[in-house]
Amino acid sequence: MAGRELSSTRSPRVKAARRLAKRAFRRREHRFLAEGPQAVREALALNGVLAELFATAEAENRHQDLIAQAEKAGVPTFRVSGEVMAELAQTVTPQGLLAVCEFVDVALDKALSPAPRLVTVLAHVRDPGNAGTVLRTADAAGSDSVIFTDASVDPYNGKCVRASAGSLFHLPVVTGPRFDALIPALKDAGLTVVAADGAGEASLDTALDAGTLDGPTAWVFGNEAWGLPEEILNAVDEVVRVPIYGGAESLNLATAAAVCLYTSARAQRAPRTP
Amino acid sequence: MAGRELSSTRSPRVKAARRLAKRAFRRREHRFLAEGPQAVREALALNGVLAELFATAEAENRHQDLIAQAEKAGVPTFRVSGEVMAELAQTVTPQGLLAVCEFVDVALDKALSPAPRLVTVLAHVRDPGNAGTVLRTADAAGSDSVIFTDASVDPYNGKCVRASAGSLFHLPVVTGPRFDALIPALKDAGLTVVAADGAGEASLDTALDAGTLDGPTAWVFGNEAWGLPEEILNAVDEVVRVPIYGGAESLNLATAAAVCLYTSARAQRAPRTP
Repeated sequence: MAGRELSSTRSPRVKAARRLAKRAFRRREHRFLAEGPQAVREALALNGVLAELFATAEAENRHQDLIAQAEKAGVPTFRVSGEVMAELAQTVTPQGLLAVCEFVDVALDKALSPAPRLVTVLAHVRDPGNAGTVLRTADAAGSDSVIFTDASVDPYNGKCVRASAGSLFHLPVVTGPRFDALIPALKDAGLTVVAADGAGEASLDTALDAGTLDGPTAWVFGNEAWGLPEEILNAVDEVVRVPIYGGAESLNLATAAAVCLYTSARAQRAPRTP
Repeated sequence: MAGRELSSTRSPRVKAARRLAKRAFRRREHRFLAEGPQAVREALALNGVLAELFATAEAENRHQDLIAQAEKAGVPTFRVSGEVMAELAQTVTPQGLLAVCEFVDVALDKALSPAPRLVTVLAHVRDPGNAGTVLRTADAAGSDSVIFTDASVDPYNGKCVRASAGSLFHLPVVTGPRFDALIPALKDAGLTVVAADGAGEASLDTALDAGTLDGPTAWVFGNEAWGLPEEILNAVDEVVRVPIYGGAESLNLATAAAVCLYTSARAQRAPRTP
């Protein structure tokens, strides 16, 4: 390591990084925090995203390859004490590596071009852990992009970044579009806009059998507790519910999203034959 | 309420209930704690399961129907102070209602008879929140029963009970069978035993197209971090992976289980036609 050691939690650089735990500061700096070797590796893979790297002596030892790679890329790296890492990290058991990253989100028109096949929209999703899990699932299911509307949680929230398990760095993420402008843009991009809602008239099986999911699709997922507002349900092309075969009242958001996105992924790869 | 008021956290009855937060005491008493009106309602629906009910004055007021129903069923009910409820409840914002419940699990042979169509097995699952979410998803997907092997988390753990959102009360749950005895029992019950594992040779789509999932199926889900041990992978009929189409390394346990169980649910209802 380049010998720069920060041992005080009052060091201006530590304080500047620590502030990124707050959304207001993230917005101002266009930077966020990501913990652990996986996040560092993913950030390094994207040009110019890794802005600063903090490591404990132990982590520095264990991840020499990553530290060397960061230094080679000209990323300022700092060795910090366990106390400083505990102050910086947002987890109970910090992994000893903390990255300050530049925002990775892209503009909506960029995310929708070239013509996407599968898009995931989070509208009014408030729990950052849920949002991160949906992001990871959307990535796994082959979603071309993930859109967080203005009423959804910040994708750069530490819990969301962690739950995404690196997926925040894998696919184009869009933040902040208003829903009333978003729906026409999705339709213009050739997507059938389908909202997942427990009150949907069509079940997922019905939609599948009808061929609704065979073409390019944007899935819209709503709030954990109360779902989606009327104005969204009225504006989309279809409202579909995941069928409940047993006694459960509902599925949680992330599992419902997994079922919907994988049903689409399969339908697009093996369309119904009439 | 029958006028029995407990205002001290040192009341023997409060202390006896509080101890049920620990697995050793749950095992000894064959009782567990469940919080909130939904859990109380579910427990009341099962004869003899609700053993004791604690309520704050506020919750008593809000849920008069439930309190009356419990008293009618001869369940000892106690009004407790906010302080006592905070001591009893395991959540940051307790809902004011806490039930002491008798264990609801059943023996394996009972859970497998009559011939089941869909069975969910948790092997080496350690996180109670994940286990509860899988239980809820298994219920939603129409699983006939859920089996926690001896190496898995306790389904009566408070976090598991909460994450199950009532499903612990909906379908037969089996706890504690050893895996080497379980597999033959599942096969004897006419089930194809399929393990979900990221290293599986067959993808879920391949298994679906081959008709593997059309008949009665037991799904086995493993540890969050390291999956399933060799001995289990060798003993099952098939090892299947959920396909990853994007950059994600894997899915989390609960979302992978949701995709597998719903794929089975659909396959059983609409089998492939050759």
